[in-house]
Amino acid sequence: MPAYVLGHKIPDSDSICSAISLAYLKNAIGEEAVPVRMGELNPETTFILDTFGLDTPELKTSFAGESVYIVDHSDRAQSPDDLSEATVLGIVDHHKLGDITTSAPLECWIRPVGCSNTIIKEMYDYYNVEVPKGIAGIMMSAILSDTVIFKSPTCTPVDVAAVETLAAIAGVEDYKAFGVEMFKVKSRVEGTPVRELVMRDFKDFEMSGKRVGIGQLETVDLSVFDSVKADLQTDIARLKQEGGRHSVCLLLTDIMQEGSELLVVGDDLSIVEGAFDTSIIDGKVWLDGVLSRKKQVVPPLEKAFA
Amino acid sequence: MPAYVLGHKIPDSDSICSAISLAYLKNAIGEEAVPVRMGELNPETTFILDTFGLDTPELKTSFAGESVYIVDHSDRAQSPDDLSEATVLGIVDHHKLGDITTSAPLECWIRPVGCSNTIIKEMYDYYNVEVPKGIAGIMMSAILSDTVIFKSPTCTPVDVAAVETLAAIAGVEDYKAFGVEMFKVKSRVEGTPVRELVMRDFKDFEMSGKRVGIGQLETVDLSVFDSVKADLQTDIARLKQEGGRHSVCLLLTDIMQEGSELLVVGDDLSIVEGAFDTSIIDGKVWLDGVLSRKKQVVPPLEKAFA
Repeated sequence: MPAYVLGHKIPDSDSICSAISLAYLKNAIGEEAVPVRMGELNPETTFILDTFGLDTPELKTSFAGESVYIVDHSDRAQSPDDLSEATVLGIVDHHKLGDITTSAPLECWIRPVGCSNTIIKEMYDYYNVEVPKGIAGIMMSAILSDTVIFKSPTCTPVDVAAVETLAAIAGVEDYKAFGVEMFKVKSRVEGTPVRELVMRDFKDFEMSGKRVGIGQLETVDLSVFDSVKADLQTDIARLKQEGGRHSVCLLLTDIMQEGSELLVVGDDLSIVEGAFDTSIIDGKVWLDGVLSRKKQVVPPLEKAFA
Repeated sequence: MPAYVLGHKIPDSDSICSAISLAYLKNAIGEEAVPVRMGELNPETTFILDTFGLDTPELKTSFAGESVYIVDHSDRAQSPDDLSEATVLGIVDHHKLGDITTSAPLECWIRPVGCSNTIIKEMYDYYNVEVPKGIAGIMMSAILSDTVIFKSPTCTPVDVAAVETLAAIAGVEDYKAFGVEMFKVKSRVEGTPVRELVMRDFKDFEMSGKRVGIGQLETVDLSVFDSVKADLQTDIARLKQEGGRHSVCLLLTDIMQEGSELLVVGDDLSIVEGAFDTSIIDGKVWLDGVLSRKKQVVPPLEKAFA
């Protein structure tokens, strides 16, 4: 019986690419493993898999009685609903330590780096397994995506070194130019339903008993959102109601300007204002220098909610 | 400000030795770190530190405002009471994943091997840091202790390989003979207060909302406990009352016979009987082949309590 390798709900590129790259590694060292996805691919991930000729993992959301490896998260809220009925063999992640617990020993490769695929590259080196060309391409892409082409404060020298090595294996000469292409696909707005935009990279967090949803859209030019901003604000208000959330934040991140416009609805906006030491006007505020949800948004919000 | 490296409450040899060996490694790679202990050393650990000429870490139990590395556990119940006010930089452990969470990314080196020091040996290799002679001796000792000289089902080939390498560095020719000496010290009974014996390697677990305490005493000859067994049974009954526990188990493990006599008191012994598919008579039962609390006692008990 194979082990399934799965990223978080509402998968981003790192979740999908690390499921594929870790499953390949496990098979290479003699453990049968199958990558799966917990939801639909976003346009960026589709672009990455198409570019490097890899198949979309199968959709699978129930894991009772199965063995699993978890990538790119360690929170129950982002994991399968029936995870407690599965056996967690391992976790590979680069976020804060979440509330998943296990009843047997396991392997955890968790590092404060910019991307799960950077850690998986370390695992290939550890096990002395060669990274195939296509897998190198998607691993490189995921690291460029998560680190916002090295501009995110979560980016470390280990991420940069991993991208350089992987780009050489994948035969990508100008990986920064490739990264900008990828981000143009990522922030494509025309023809996309508003809800799909909001949910494209959306995560729920439990903060001192309150549910806080935080979405993020990254772009190389913030003005692409001008025509849909009002609709985005209406939709996150709807999302707040539907999910019984205390607050919903949506970060519109401009990688070139290096900051984010925060759209927010909530039961008590003074908490959010306190977290960022700012004033929210008409449900929005520009946060200069804020690029990383994980490092610059979640920790101050958690502190403010505590 | 240095980071503190700390093992669990009621420290065993792995908790103390891995605090020392990890702190040394962190300093070697340029991070200031200080090993500490959360309680008194047991006779085995004292024997190990004396043999290899290393100092006893300082006692420290409060860590509010400090940065810490946690070794040999990932459970809040075994960690400092004010851990939520500290910054957890990393965890090195070989147990099931516990309920410690963090609000920032960290490093976790968690592996399903026999001892935390086996993982720390891997970390020395990763960072290309030479293990000094004395540190090699205590790391080897901790692995021999945790794996019951390789007889525990938690022992893996990685543990054996680590001991062989470390013994060579430490200049210990017959490490198995050294291990038997160490276990004789570990199971010394004469002159030891009963409560000290019970607490020598005692851990509390939360099982479906019930507190279950499980202690373990390992010996090379079970008959050493004959003269104190009745007193041990009286004392675990007292311990159950004092700590508001549902059950208290004490494993008297005979490494040569390869099994454990389980002494147990509890509000509902049928749960414990169900966990091990056995009958408890006069508060005790022989569990053949059971050597590991972590792998053979905690998981079936958790399942039975669920």
